[in-house]
Formats: sequence, structure tokens, C-alpha cells
Amino acid sequence: MTGSDDLCSLRWDSSRGMAAIIDQRLLPHALEWCHLDSLEAYCFAIREMQVRGAPLIGVTAAFGLAHALAQDPSDENLANASRALLATRPTAVNLRWALEQVGSVVRDLPVTERAAVAHDKAVTVRKEDIANCERIGNNGLEVLRGIGKSRLDIMTHCNAGWLATVQWGTALAPIYKAHASGIDVHVWVSETRPRNQGTSLTAWELNEAGVPCTVVTDNSCGQLMRQGRVDCVIVGSDRTAANGDVCNKVGTYLKALAAQANNVPFYAALPESTIDWTCRDGAEIPIEERDASEVLSIAGLDASGARREVNLAGAATSALNQAFDVTPAQHVRGLITDYGTFDASEAGLQKMRSVIERG
Amino acid sequence: MTGSDDLCSLRWDSSRGMAAIIDQRLLPHALEWCHLDSLEAYCFAIREMQVRGAPLIGVTAAFGLAHALAQDPSDENLANASRALLATRPTAVNLRWALEQVGSVVRDLPVTERAAVAHDKAVTVRKEDIANCERIGNNGLEVLRGIGKSRLDIMTHCNAGWLATVQWGTALAPIYKAHASGIDVHVWVSETRPRNQGTSLTAWELNEAGVPCTVVTDNSCGQLMRQGRVDCVIVGSDRTAANGDVCNKVGTYLKALAAQANNVPFYAALPESTIDWTCRDGAEIPIEERDASEVLSIAGLDASGARREVNLAGAATSALNQAFDVTPAQHVRGLITDYGTFDASEAGLQKMRSVIERG
Repeated sequence: MTGSDDLCSLRWDSSRGMAAIIDQRLLPHALEWCHLDSLEAYCFAIREMQVRGAPLIGVTAAFGLAHALAQDPSDENLANASRALLATRPTAVNLRWALEQVGSVVRDLPVTERAAVAHDKAVTVRKEDIANCERIGNNGLEVLRGIGKSRLDIMTHCNAGWLATVQWGTALAPIYKAHASGIDVHVWVSETRPRNQGTSLTAWELNEAGVPCTVVTDNSCGQLMRQGRVDCVIVGSDRTAANGDVCNKVGTYLKALAAQANNVPFYAALPESTIDWTCRDGAEIPIEERDASEVLSIAGLDASGARREVNLAGAATSALNQAFDVTPAQHVRGLITDYGTFDASEAGLQKMRSVIERG
Repeated sequence: MTGSDDLCSLRWDSSRGMAAIIDQRLLPHALEWCHLDSLEAYCFAIREMQVRGAPLIGVTAAFGLAHALAQDPSDENLANASRALLATRPTAVNLRWALEQVGSVVRDLPVTERAAVAHDKAVTVRKEDIANCERIGNNGLEVLRGIGKSRLDIMTHCNAGWLATVQWGTALAPIYKAHASGIDVHVWVSETRPRNQGTSLTAWELNEAGVPCTVVTDNSCGQLMRQGRVDCVIVGSDRTAANGDVCNKVGTYLKALAAQANNVPFYAALPESTIDWTCRDGAEIPIEERDASEVLSIAGLDASGARREVNLAGAATSALNQAFDVTPAQHVRGLITDYGTFDASEAGLQKMRSVIERG
């Protein structure tokens, strides 16, 4: 069941003293858990996208740093391991945030105490991620109820479900909550080229949870809104700037433009850890450029059920693969967060900050 | 060379008395010609997209009807063959137009004269398509010169090149003309899910012609415009309504929205035969819905070089596959046609009509 302990993307295997993750590259065709037994395994998991999704990247990095300190708690290793983990992916700010969560509690400790405290902190970061996502779900449910329809067609992009966090998800948390509360929800899942996280992760998650969904090409998302078949769009975010600009999986911006043109409310759902308060606007967010092969070839199951990569392009073809885009705040109806739903604007985020500071 | 007789998508093989087409489903991995020897072969070619692109669908249908009349020139077969060809694809209006071109010249003839006249008319339709596309190229070249830059980054969607017509293309004709005239042109080719005509056809065509190009996901096209990396967007059209609404490959609408939001000029390039004067606006255009398998699986070359289809989705996953969308005229800067470039509006198209009537 969504939100239960047996449905999560990262768990601590206390019998082996290691974190275990789902190798998401193999979904939806195979569900394989993978133990992380070295700093290099953690870096590989993030860089090669065995784990992905800003919150889950953060939690994984926290356990990775704790693992490194269990091997060698020296200042030098703390710095080196932090640097190695930070270098795995450039866009999601939760990575930096989670490393700082762990780093800040161990930095001033004697080296002998660091490993245990770091591990405890990673466990806490994981637990809080679950609680934060559930709060996003509840806050988003209020937004969905506000639409005032007993049947809702919600569009999402990429995967911002429990596979992108630990449990619940960000964009999908309100959908799971709405489904559980008896609202007749149907989800338009954009396939999300080039890595097809919509088809392979979001559709899989929703099917597992019994939430009706339909995969569509990214290209058809505008048309569906023009046809009046979308009540609301909810996406996640990899980094949100202090002015409300939302950086998320490439293609988010086009959906936001179509939503605005067709008066469909467009929300980003994110925990506070995704907000980069030091970043004035989206132009300051580094956009990861990934290998062209992600665009020019793709993996799937052949007729015999074997996983196989096929080349889609002619030999002479080159490609550019920007993994994220920035949606200007003006196109975002609101930010659904663990502290409530706020305007996507400097004022809205200042209001959120004051809510946080009031505790 | 672009525009030369040896570079075309459909030719009349007089030695065998048959039309031959490139089986475009095999590109970019294999260039195979295929002779059409029965009405069923023509219908299959259009329905299964061995040929595609509104103008080429029209030319193929003209030869298909001529072929059917060579077998049996009766009124009954004229009606049946026309009906069978018309039923292959619903959206491109050129199909209906081309059948009417042939039908109207044979309908009142004695049955014994029909086959030869129909064949001559198909040859004429083909020849005129080439001439019309070259005119579109020249008219579009003026538009591109008007941008006033010596280096141009042009974005296109799907394939509206010579593979979509007979020679030259519609959206790509101005690009070929610009390249030939010494303008430093680079093309952003959106891959065009689900059938990837951008990657497999447009990039192949442009590479063959030596025009620099880069494939990008459909998702990244908005981002590229925001980054100021696109000077102009040119797409084709499968049917244009009398008010200037442009129906084209699904995803066109999202590009048009992004172009308008970023002040990038957005043009549709089309021959007069693509305009449906009987259609008041885009809402009247039937949108073809194709099989979900086009979204959920894909074919490419495996490591051994064999063509293989792979499944991208979990077993429980369903998909919706709308093949086209409508871009409202207000988002279109202009229509580049064989008669000149006109506003995408009722007034613009009336002006075009008066140019046509003046001859």
C-alpha cells in the first residue's frame, strides 16, 4: 500500500549493515534490489540513475556520506566523499542539502563519533522525507478538493512518485491521497523522453497502486489540455529558485505553457529541501546535459523477454540532451509543499519561510 | 542533390509499369524501394506508413487510383477504389484532394479511356507537387532572408522534407534553398514521438544533403527557445482550415506556444492542396487516433545490426495515441505556400485565393 514500509525506494538493511535501493533502470520490466557497499556504488547509483528524483537523490547521498565515514571518518575523507557525491548530478539541490545535513552534524565531532551520528542523521533524513511527502500529499489533496469535481483527470510529467522519494512521492502524493479518499482520479502520464520515466516508473507505480492511468507522448499533452481533458497538472521539482521559478525534468515548461493557454491549473509539488534560497531565479540553476545516446538509443524488452538496447538513429546523427528545463514562476499556479501551498513568487516563498520559522 | 530526379520518394518505373516508393518504415537503417502492384499494396503503403506526409500521401493515392482503373475502369471500381484509398488515413486532406484530381478527369470518360488519362493525371500531380514544393522553398527562402542573419538556427518537427512530398519537401524546402544559397543553416530536429520521424527521417534527409542538424527530444524544444537558440520554427501541415488553423503532427501546438512565448517566428509551410477550404476551423478536422503500441514499443537496430522491436512499458500499461494536433492560427506567424507567404487567418487565406484566381 502506498505509504507503507514495504513500499519504498530505499531501505536500511540492518542485517547486512547496508542501504538497499531499487535499481530503477530495470523498471518496469524487473524489480531488483541492490545493496550499496562502497562510496563508488553510491556515486554510481546516483550518476547512472539507479536512483533518481531530487528527494531520493538526497536521501541516498546522506547514506552514502555516512557509509564513507564508517570506512574512514577523517576530515579528509569527509571532504572527499562529500565532493564525490556532490559531483554525481548537478541540478537537484537536495543532493547538496542532504550532504550538508549530515556534514553539519559530524563536522565538529571527534572522528570516533562521526560514523554513528552520520548514520543516525541519514536515517532521520529518510524518515523526514517520508513525513514531508505525506504532508505534501495532504496539502495537495486540499488543492484537488478545491477543484470541486468528483472525477479528476490529472496530468503529471516524469516520475515524482514514491520512486523519486522514499515513500508517497511529491507530485503523486496528492494523487494517492485523493485516490484513497474516494475521488475518482485518472492520471495522464507523459512518457517523458528521453528516459521515459513516465512510461517505465510513473505508470508502473500507479498501476501497482490501482490508480487508473494512461500513458501519452509528451507531444500530445498540449492537445489534451485544448480538448478539455485535463483538470490539473502536478509535477515535481529538482530545484526551485527563491522567486518561484521551477526547474524540473525537461518538458515541464511546455506543459506549463499549455496549461496557462488553456486555463488549466499547473502546480509543482516539492519539499522545502528542494528550494534553493540562495538562487535568485531559474537562470542561475545549472542544467545537466547528459549523453546524446539517451536520445538516440533506448532499451526495452524484445520478443523473447530479454532486455535489449536498440539504436533509433542513423550513424551520422548527433543529438543534444538537456535533462531539465526552467518554468518561470508566472506559469505556476502554486507550490504544494510540506508547509502548505504557496504562490510561486518571492512573496509566496517568503510567506513559506515565515511559516517555517514560526515552527 | 536535393531537388534532383534521383532524390525522390516516389517514382514511376516505366519498365515494370509500376510506381515504386521508399519503405520509410525502414529508414534510417535501410533504404529499400518497394513496387506497388495492387490496390491493396497502395492502401497498405499509406495506412501502414511506408509513405507518409500529406503531399506524398496524395501523390501515392493518385497513382493508386490510376492503378485500380488500369485493372478495372468501371464506375463501380472507380467508386470502390476511391473509397478504399480514402479510408487509409483520416487527417491529411491531400488524400481526398488527389483522389478528386484523378476522379474528376476520368468520371465522364468512356471506361476504355480512363486508365491512360488517370495515369497521366497521376504523373501530373506528381510533377506539380515537385514544382509546388520548389516554389514553397523559394518563398520560404525570402522569409528566412528577412530574419537578416547570416547564421540561422531553424527548428522543425516531424518530417516535412522530400520524404514527405516527392522532392524538396514543404518545411525543409526553404532550408534546402537557404543552405544552397550560402546561408549558414543549422536545424534543430525534434525527434517527434511516437514514430520518431524527426530522428529517423528528417535527420537522415538533412545529413544526406549535408545540412548540419541536431536531434533533440520534443521536450527540450521549449527550453531551446527560452535560451535564445532558435531563430525560426518551420513545420509542415496535414490540413489547414480556412481560418488558418494548422493541423499537423502531434506536438506542433506545444512548439507554437513556446515560439509565441519567446517571440520566435513560427511558420507552417504547405502547398495549396493542404488547405481544406470547406473546413471553417481546426475543430472540424478529424484527429487520427493510432494504435497504443506505437507509444509503448519501438523498433531500432540491436547491437548485431538486426532490426528489433522492444517493449518500453509494463504489461498493465495502456496508452492513448493521438497522431495530430491543431495549432490555432493566432500562434502562427505565417503560411509559406506555393503562392507566397500569407497571414494565417481567414483574410490571409482569402488573399491567397485571389492570387490563385488571378492565375
